[in-house]
Amino acid sequence: MFTYEELHKKVADYINSLNFSSEPYGLYQPIKYTLDTGGKRLRPVLALMAANMFTNDLDSVMSSAIALEVFHNFTLLHDDLMDNADIRRKMPTVHKKWSANTAILSGDAMMIKAFQLINETKSSEKNQIIEIFNQTALEVCEGQQYDMNFEERIDVSENEYINMIRLKTSVLLAACLKIGAVAAGATKSQSSALYNVGVNMGLSFQLQDDYLDTFGNVEIFGKNIGGDIRANKKTYLLIKALELAKGEQLQQLKTLISTDEVDSDEKVKLVTQIYKDLDIEQLVRVKIKKYNDLAISELSGLDVDDDKKTFLLQLINKLTNRSF
Amino acid sequence: MFTYEELHKKVADYINSLNFSSEPYGLYQPIKYTLDTGGKRLRPVLALMAANMFTNDLDSVMSSAIALEVFHNFTLLHDDLMDNADIRRKMPTVHKKWSANTAILSGDAMMIKAFQLINETKSSEKNQIIEIFNQTALEVCEGQQYDMNFEERIDVSENEYINMIRLKTSVLLAACLKIGAVAAGATKSQSSALYNVGVNMGLSFQLQDDYLDTFGNVEIFGKNIGGDIRANKKTYLLIKALELAKGEQLQQLKTLISTDEVDSDEKVKLVTQIYKDLDIEQLVRVKIKKYNDLAISELSGLDVDDDKKTFLLQLINKLTNRSF
Repeated sequence: MFTYEELHKKVADYINSLNFSSEPYGLYQPIKYTLDTGGKRLRPVLALMAANMFTNDLDSVMSSAIALEVFHNFTLLHDDLMDNADIRRKMPTVHKKWSANTAILSGDAMMIKAFQLINETKSSEKNQIIEIFNQTALEVCEGQQYDMNFEERIDVSENEYINMIRLKTSVLLAACLKIGAVAAGATKSQSSALYNVGVNMGLSFQLQDDYLDTFGNVEIFGKNIGGDIRANKKTYLLIKALELAKGEQLQQLKTLISTDEVDSDEKVKLVTQIYKDLDIEQLVRVKIKKYNDLAISELSGLDVDDDKKTFLLQLINKLTNRSF
Repeated sequence: MFTYEELHKKVADYINSLNFSSEPYGLYQPIKYTLDTGGKRLRPVLALMAANMFTNDLDSVMSSAIALEVFHNFTLLHDDLMDNADIRRKMPTVHKKWSANTAILSGDAMMIKAFQLINETKSSEKNQIIEIFNQTALEVCEGQQYDMNFEERIDVSENEYINMIRLKTSVLLAACLKIGAVAAGATKSQSSALYNVGVNMGLSFQLQDDYLDTFGNVEIFGKNIGGDIRANKKTYLLIKALELAKGEQLQQLKTLISTDEVDSDEKVKLVTQIYKDLDIEQLVRVKIKKYNDLAISELSGLDVDDDKKTFLLQLINKLTNRSF
């Protein structure tokens, strides 16, 4: 069994071996830049970790694992443009460093590269792997669309929100585990169980992200606390608060999230206080735990020796217990 | 053998049968809108026409043919955003009707749909078909990148220009013919010959497009004459003029294409006059004929009965002799 660090190294080596130095440079350099900025490489590591439950020979899974990482980075590239985000992993985003057109076109080329990589698999289950990949890619777009739609609404329900983050974040993590497993020869029920692990892990992870943005420890979290509140982002916290607040408190919350007049730090303080008054902190913790428990329960049910599950179990707990 | 009209009908029916009515509407409606605006359906018809040389059963080729049309329309969607074009096929472009973000995300989803369709083929040569598709898709992005690069340059050589239009326009037409042939069971040499037909046909077609934009008959061409000159577009005509003009004439041309001060109609008149003085009109006609001849010569060399080639031959001549 390979550890996270060992799998991360394999991923980094493979990505370094990809050749993006060909012309036209204006097309390929931004792809290289995006992939080189690194990050946790969570998605390809998940694919390899799942595969590693069934085989020690991970070479045949590498191209699919990298395809998932390239696709994920493509979505970040286009999402950052759509969200007009300036910084990603402490570096200027592609549309800031180059231009919006560069971000569009290099992103497109990057997606095609991902399709080329997923098509390289030598697995006898190639057709299934490509189908999972394509279906997941489309669902991620659906998630981003719902996320954009929600910006215009203040009546988003909890179910709608969970469905959005399932599509935008969870299904790709789930597809990583499933594709890794399928490529390594898992049975249908094994790969399905791992898919469900991924969905629940993703939901827990994303809710944790919402939580930490408001209630996290700056030093551990490494982002500015309150960024979501400043941006009026429809997080799980805000959606629950809009659902639970009544009367004057509801009016205050609506006013806070619909004007730019309130000083930003003051706004973070006031909205956070409303969250505290409504006990949103506790409510979201319960929800995070619920999905974390579901992920672990799905993993327990997976028909694979327990010792093979150790690293994935550790990872789930690490990802969804990042600060409490 | 099916005529263009019959093949066009098959394509239209298949596209109508695609379901884009699911949620989120904000993602799928712009895809439906883009596909519904129609156009010549040249690419899928080419794929079916090539297949029809080898089989009368075109059902098995349909999904691949439509994948090529969906991909082409995706490129138009993103290109129109990058070029900030307001109108496409007499309708508002997606980014004008909706928003830039809609154009980005619906375009992404549209590309994924194209990959889903190409993956649906039941052909025993599926792997080859997907590889041609992916490679071509990437080349089309390269072509668009070169086209954008050329906007910033006045020293683009003829070879660079031909390479750009080969990538941006020709390889997709070539891939249509090749994929249609491969899916219908053509041999390697047959499908390669058809690829070469497509490349040359595409070059001839694009040069014709450049020609007609300046020297075409408004009523036949159906676009405003001089649009490329107004936009300082680096066409074959302008590149050759910059190469051939000397002294005062070169200075005048450079001034005309680098300022917005000259009244637009006057600019079209003056640049057209320079083209005439330099005999660019004749020069581009010779070039169009050269690639048209090459396309026909490749088609003649194709190891298929002559009567099977009739419709494609007619189409090549129609496309590249549109007004003279």
